[in-house]
Amino acid sequence: MQRKARSKAHLGEFELIAQLFAPLATSKAALGLCDDVALLRVPNGHELVLTTDAIVEGVHFFSNDPPKSVAQKALRVNLSDLAAKGANPIGYLMALALPAQATTRWLKAFCTGLQADQKRYGLSLLGGDTTRTDGPLAIAITAIGSAPRGKMTRREGAKPGDVVFVSGTIGDAGCALELLKTRRGAQRFLTERFRVPEPRVRLGRESRGLASSSIDVSDGLLADLGHIAEVSRVRIAVRAGQVPLSAASRALWRGGERAVVRAATAGDDYEIAFTCRPADALNVKRAALRAKTHVTEIGTVERGRGVVLLDSKGNEIKTARRGYTHF
Amino acid sequence: MQRKARSKAHLGEFELIAQLFAPLATSKAALGLCDDVALLRVPNGHELVLTTDAIVEGVHFFSNDPPKSVAQKALRVNLSDLAAKGANPIGYLMALALPAQATTRWLKAFCTGLQADQKRYGLSLLGGDTTRTDGPLAIAITAIGSAPRGKMTRREGAKPGDVVFVSGTIGDAGCALELLKTRRGAQRFLTERFRVPEPRVRLGRESRGLASSSIDVSDGLLADLGHIAEVSRVRIAVRAGQVPLSAASRALWRGGERAVVRAATAGDDYEIAFTCRPADALNVKRAALRAKTHVTEIGTVERGRGVVLLDSKGNEIKTARRGYTHF
Repeated sequence: MQRKARSKAHLGEFELIAQLFAPLATSKAALGLCDDVALLRVPNGHELVLTTDAIVEGVHFFSNDPPKSVAQKALRVNLSDLAAKGANPIGYLMALALPAQATTRWLKAFCTGLQADQKRYGLSLLGGDTTRTDGPLAIAITAIGSAPRGKMTRREGAKPGDVVFVSGTIGDAGCALELLKTRRGAQRFLTERFRVPEPRVRLGRESRGLASSSIDVSDGLLADLGHIAEVSRVRIAVRAGQVPLSAASRALWRGGERAVVRAATAGDDYEIAFTCRPADALNVKRAALRAKTHVTEIGTVERGRGVVLLDSKGNEIKTARRGYTHF
Repeated sequence: MQRKARSKAHLGEFELIAQLFAPLATSKAALGLCDDVALLRVPNGHELVLTTDAIVEGVHFFSNDPPKSVAQKALRVNLSDLAAKGANPIGYLMALALPAQATTRWLKAFCTGLQADQKRYGLSLLGGDTTRTDGPLAIAITAIGSAPRGKMTRREGAKPGDVVFVSGTIGDAGCALELLKTRRGAQRFLTERFRVPEPRVRLGRESRGLASSSIDVSDGLLADLGHIAEVSRVRIAVRAGQVPLSAASRALWRGGERAVVRAATAGDDYEIAFTCRPADALNVKRAALRAKTHVTEIGTVERGRGVVLLDSKGNEIKTARRGYTHF
């Protein structure tokens, strides 16, 4: 309905596709972005795994974040869902809503982020849509992966007696967000953890068949384990002293229980929280070594409902909230 | 980064999913929206057809459009892409960016639109993401369909000698948009053509194997036939006198060549433009009858490049533009 003045700083819609996006359409399934659709042949004996996540300027990233990292965050929050399911990434479709301020220069840098991650995780752009908006920049991505038939790791499946693992460290992105919102800025390690999460694709794949349930930690460790507990109809007990915190967040949040509570309810981690039978715990640790990803045993699955955080004496630590919500 | 005050007019994120979206996840592949992903088994001997399109408040629909029709437009612009390819709709994933003004009441009405169209076109919600935005409401949908292996109708494939068809009538949405922008309002028929396009799913399916190339008309009839001409490396000649206009748009644009030029460059039609061998033209008309969809023969494919609009004497009518662009 609106039409924006077009300057040299802006490419037209078809020029954008031809110059910036077509080079990212490396898979045959993308049909060179020269058709209305992508056409995907699914590997024999495999099922497709699909997820969609959008990120919005001012909500999930800051206006002055580097365009490269904005692209990577948009893609990686989706890859994190595939990772938790043990799926192999295949490709993605992307709907971009661009404000007039998004220059060709910004978009070029944005595409270098996509290109780097396509190579890193082995996937291709399959299709897209670009539209103008009067509002903030928004990127909606649908990521597609595959898993051998019947072998995807589900959210449902945790059983009493299982042990609970989590990858990496928890709370870094939340810690960075707190610092960045005050405009004091955060140290590089924390800022990067917020801007460019690391989807645990290899860990998810290596632990497929070993994990009894799995979820990616986006809402907050306790909130997400709560989702596993709910659909698996079990209780999950997390030992606060074992929740892995980075030295940086521990220092800023001054260690102790308070730091763990903040970390475990902060969200935006994009680590994997998963469960396995006790007999598989050693093989899980071996899988983590193969995936070159640190994992920590943080709790146990019990009969009952809900998720609890326990102190060193086994008493429940009450938390005001489980995680981060947009609403 | 932001957190909005929550009132009774707003459901929380998980309540939204449980109360409004889960009932739309009718396919087993959606896993009841109780996992991070959808898990899709592709029908034997079929390929997947994927497309993504977003619509943004103030760009593709008006703020005061009925929520039901906003939902239908969001879904149907995607189904139109599947229709042009002769694909059978399977499901869709939806990323919603909601401003604080979007109440539960609005969302409930929005979901009735999705539900009605899921039934009408036989598909299921497979997954989604809901986030807050400070900007306009935006809906990004990725639609998934299937086609028998190797049988999808491509954009490439028009050959010199082929005839060109288009479904329905052209220019209604553009005509409505022009009237709605002036706040005078448009008559119901035209307004509905703008708000709730009719994806030609059945026609696309019935003409699969007959059409040599096909595209959905979203940018404008001439622009979209230009896309076919470009990838098929042919020239397409459209006879202005044969371009089907509704009585309503013909009256408002006062008939004649000028009306046809406006209609053929207006965009947002979501009809199908396609080509076929002359020997298949009769079967195409039979397919259209089975699909209960009106089709009109509007031109021919020739050697050369580009697309031309011809007057009754066969002379080219120059147009200032080919279609509608956002940039």
